[in-house]
Amino acid sequence: MDTVTNRAEDPPATRPVLLALDWGTSSLRAFLMDASGAIVDQRASAHGIQNLPVAGIAGFERAFAELCGDWLSRWPGLPVVAGGMVGSAQGWKEAPYVACPADTQSLASRAVSVDSALGVPILIAPGLMFAPDEDAPDGGAPDVIRGEEIQIAGALAEHPTWASQACMAMPGTHSKWVRIKDGRIVGFATYMTGELFAVLCKHSILGRLMPEGVPADAAAAAAAFVSGVQAARDSRPGDLPHQLFATRTLGLTRRMAPELLKDYLSGLLIGHELVSGSARMQEALDGDTPLLLIGEGALCRRYGQALSVLGIKPAAQIGNTAPRGLFQFAVAAGLIVPAKETLHD
Amino acid sequence: MDTVTNRAEDPPATRPVLLALDWGTSSLRAFLMDASGAIVDQRASAHGIQNLPVAGIAGFERAFAELCGDWLSRWPGLPVVAGGMVGSAQGWKEAPYVACPADTQSLASRAVSVDSALGVPILIAPGLMFAPDEDAPDGGAPDVIRGEEIQIAGALAEHPTWASQACMAMPGTHSKWVRIKDGRIVGFATYMTGELFAVLCKHSILGRLMPEGVPADAAAAAAAFVSGVQAARDSRPGDLPHQLFATRTLGLTRRMAPELLKDYLSGLLIGHELVSGSARMQEALDGDTPLLLIGEGALCRRYGQALSVLGIKPAAQIGNTAPRGLFQFAVAAGLIVPAKETLHD
Repeated sequence: MDTVTNRAEDPPATRPVLLALDWGTSSLRAFLMDASGAIVDQRASAHGIQNLPVAGIAGFERAFAELCGDWLSRWPGLPVVAGGMVGSAQGWKEAPYVACPADTQSLASRAVSVDSALGVPILIAPGLMFAPDEDAPDGGAPDVIRGEEIQIAGALAEHPTWASQACMAMPGTHSKWVRIKDGRIVGFATYMTGELFAVLCKHSILGRLMPEGVPADAAAAAAAFVSGVQAARDSRPGDLPHQLFATRTLGLTRRMAPELLKDYLSGLLIGHELVSGSARMQEALDGDTPLLLIGEGALCRRYGQALSVLGIKPAAQIGNTAPRGLFQFAVAAGLIVPAKETLHD
Repeated sequence: MDTVTNRAEDPPATRPVLLALDWGTSSLRAFLMDASGAIVDQRASAHGIQNLPVAGIAGFERAFAELCGDWLSRWPGLPVVAGGMVGSAQGWKEAPYVACPADTQSLASRAVSVDSALGVPILIAPGLMFAPDEDAPDGGAPDVIRGEEIQIAGALAEHPTWASQACMAMPGTHSKWVRIKDGRIVGFATYMTGELFAVLCKHSILGRLMPEGVPADAAAAAAAFVSGVQAARDSRPGDLPHQLFATRTLGLTRRMAPELLKDYLSGLLIGHELVSGSARMQEALDGDTPLLLIGEGALCRRYGQALSVLGIKPAAQIGNTAPRGLFQFAVAAGLIVPAKETLHD
């Protein structure tokens, strides 16, 4: 592919076979990967699709060129793949939603390619859609993910034992609870937990009693968080719009210090997500299905603390697996041949 | 009291005995009332406590003088009472929260008086606090109301048969579900339904697919509203942060027209409030307790439609009873003696 000879003084010493882009709403992360799937170099910029240097297609081009131009000068013709919101309707080019059940091969079969000004095409991964039966809970309202399916492909590649059956909880702005069976994603549910927390703190009456920049005692903050989780654990259907108001009254009546109200609200919202997510998991999968937490370490630990209030122990907590997932996607798309592995057809 | 003789050309012909102020967050409404509790004249301004003409105490003085100055010139020394957020920590003068169970007499006994620059004192009604046992649902988090207790005093005065036992649902920004027993308010729960709806439409991703100013077909909007209520009816604990996301996916997948998404979200949130509120009502009160809707007509009708999806029929739907409640408060405080009625002591 490339004709440049690596010189000893030029890192990385390992010749990359893939440039993988994890391109979300608020950031763009780029990974140079070798044939074993290892990361040989990585970079990031704040040029997520909602924060491009200029508007429109030119913004995608410039963000890509600024972050990866020299890499592609050095290794022209390197295969490039991308996952995340870059494939949404607001992205560089829209990649469709693939229906569940789906695996990495399904993603590859519906990928879309966009030609970049740097002379290389970029293969963009599709998202996933889960459309339950009309008589299922939620009246059969569909659900979508875009980006997490790539992380799951990476998690399953790194931990093949979970492919037979598992539930992956991926905390975030829009948390995802994804059910895996026989190597495929069979269903999922989105929880707007992180966005609800941010919007309520910033724009609702609940934020008014929360002081800016007042540090909270760590033990007291942990206790406030647990109180919120306990309220969620003891809740009954429909209770959340009422329980939220306690974030105000606990402050108003000085039963909770102002700097702890955020932790209470966080516990309440995460608790509601966990109560619902774990119930749906137990309904759809066997009782001994492992629950895995995937995502940023501190947030996963917070979810782990909340799960312990509910008496649930996650089987594992793992970091971002997007680079490995993008690698699997490139393999499935036939762009690269992995070292020491058989290409799945 | 006053020495001015009514002339034939000066409305109102009936001599007022009370000036009642319903002073909330976004508006100030003033009522001249006669000894029978009838409104002889009324006015309103947009000078709610968060929208005063100038900041601080001077703002309260000016808003009061602008709206009521000429009335008090004509009837100097007229007793003045006020209810609502004017008695909050952000109000003219803070009136405490009275503990449940409470009635109009309890409110009067803890009222606070503030001297106005017009030369008359204003008696401000306190709010109410409900502090359930620590082992009750919600971990015993306290709840508060301010303003609704006055409306309830009015509703019970107008409909004494409901005083023995009733549940009053008062839809709004912060809906209140208030339980009445033996003439007293025994408990209540606040639901942030209206504020959640506003904040999510304006500041969350859910609002992005909602077009501005596109009129919806009335029948289609009603059906979308009912779909939201049905999703709430079928929900299980913790489901709301997930179900909210359907407002996005139904639009994204074009299963619901963009101009209907607001109605779906409204039905979902109101539905959650009703599921929780009615369950709590049935738990705390007898099965045959009447449920009353109190508030603005169009919103009450919307709640009535949602209740019918849940198979619940409200016993009555009544408008704003704040003027009559302020009258009862003034009677209980000994400021006025009602005509043709015995003053409760």
